[in-house]
Amino acid sequence: MSDVKDVTQHISQKFNAELRHLHTQVLGMGGLVEEQLANAIIALTTGDEQLAKRVYHNDYTVNALEISIDEECTQVIVRRQPAASDLRLIMAVIKTINDLERIGDEAEGIARTSIKIAGLTQKHYVTFVHLGERVRQVLHDALDAFARSDTDQAVSVIRDTFNIDDEYESLVRQLITYMMEDSRMIPVVLNLLWSARALERIAAHTRNVCENIIYFSKGKDVRHISLEQLEKQTRGEIQE
Amino acid sequence: MSDVKDVTQHISQKFNAELRHLHTQVLGMGGLVEEQLANAIIALTTGDEQLAKRVYHNDYTVNALEISIDEECTQVIVRRQPAASDLRLIMAVIKTINDLERIGDEAEGIARTSIKIAGLTQKHYVTFVHLGERVRQVLHDALDAFARSDTDQAVSVIRDTFNIDDEYESLVRQLITYMMEDSRMIPVVLNLLWSARALERIAAHTRNVCENIIYFSKGKDVRHISLEQLEKQTRGEIQE
Repeated sequence: MSDVKDVTQHISQKFNAELRHLHTQVLGMGGLVEEQLANAIIALTTGDEQLAKRVYHNDYTVNALEISIDEECTQVIVRRQPAASDLRLIMAVIKTINDLERIGDEAEGIARTSIKIAGLTQKHYVTFVHLGERVRQVLHDALDAFARSDTDQAVSVIRDTFNIDDEYESLVRQLITYMMEDSRMIPVVLNLLWSARALERIAAHTRNVCENIIYFSKGKDVRHISLEQLEKQTRGEIQE
Repeated sequence: MSDVKDVTQHISQKFNAELRHLHTQVLGMGGLVEEQLANAIIALTTGDEQLAKRVYHNDYTVNALEISIDEECTQVIVRRQPAASDLRLIMAVIKTINDLERIGDEAEGIARTSIKIAGLTQKHYVTFVHLGERVRQVLHDALDAFARSDTDQAVSVIRDTFNIDDEYESLVRQLITYMMEDSRMIPVVLNLLWSARALERIAAHTRNVCENIIYFSKGKDVRHISLEQLEKQTRGEIQE
């Protein structure tokens, strides 16, 4: 009997180690994606071609990480036949790395724009840089919440991403004004506009990461609900 | 012994029925999303507000379908503890409905643009409508390939989506010209440009759906590789 217990405990310890490994892999991938975003913004606003190339190159690593973590997740499911709560964590990992990969793609897109913005000046960039810093910060905070399974922080980050949407709209209006003032600048300002849109998309993917944290920590699917409903649900005021 | 076999067969028949049900659910969701896209394009180009509202309203159904199919998938995994090949199908379902949901979001975005395009004429729309029809067609073909687990058709659709990218780039250049010709038209043409971008995104998600078909049919993860490598892999010329 004691032997059986030992074996069970051993299996369960190995399983826990595997789950921890998946968790660590996500954070490693998240760290790389965060760095990609920071470098893409610098490459765009300084025109540093070498840095832009480093971002394209590292995107292969981001993609490879998604595929390998994904494969590891399915292997763990087949080998461990997890119960519902552990499966939730694995599913959250699979979804999160998909969002991280898409954030990586958007960052690469921003870096690619860096060679198409000749003629832009500080005036055009200032709000973009501010928005970029805000988006990088929410991504950082979301990964931190993921590391600590902190649902309160996840909700707080989701709130921040909605504020970012407002800032993005304001940046779009500003850039439209620049285009209307000087129509020769339309193609180049449009490139900055695509990059602003990429930042908005990154904030949306970051929101998904936070929803995944709540899903595996609380067992609640909080996609497609309002911020108000979300806050009530995570405080446990709404029982499903 | 015969009893055991009966039970095993019974379980396996029930499991197969569950997998078939998941498959059917994806096709149902796909059909709805395809209809959403068709209606969004009509709403945008005719200014039909009622139709646009129907698209917004149906997006709730699309979102709810994603959540319920997703939940059904995790329940099947917990209950059936599937082997690798069946798990691949379930994973492909989970990823496909995520892409379908995002296609639905893009379609909703196109419908929302329909109230912001006063002043555009046939001249502005003609290429957009053509691109929209092409994108609707690849989505339709991808769902058809999914229904029949047809990897050849999946590869063929992926090839089509790359051609769509070229058409999209050409539409963008055309719309930039319209903005440069009359700067007062910038905000309204920009709205059409966002919708063109949404079509390009839908083609990219459709490509993901096709990759999922190859993943569950052939057991190969073909994300992030070139079309040439993909064609070789699906013909079995490259062994992993």
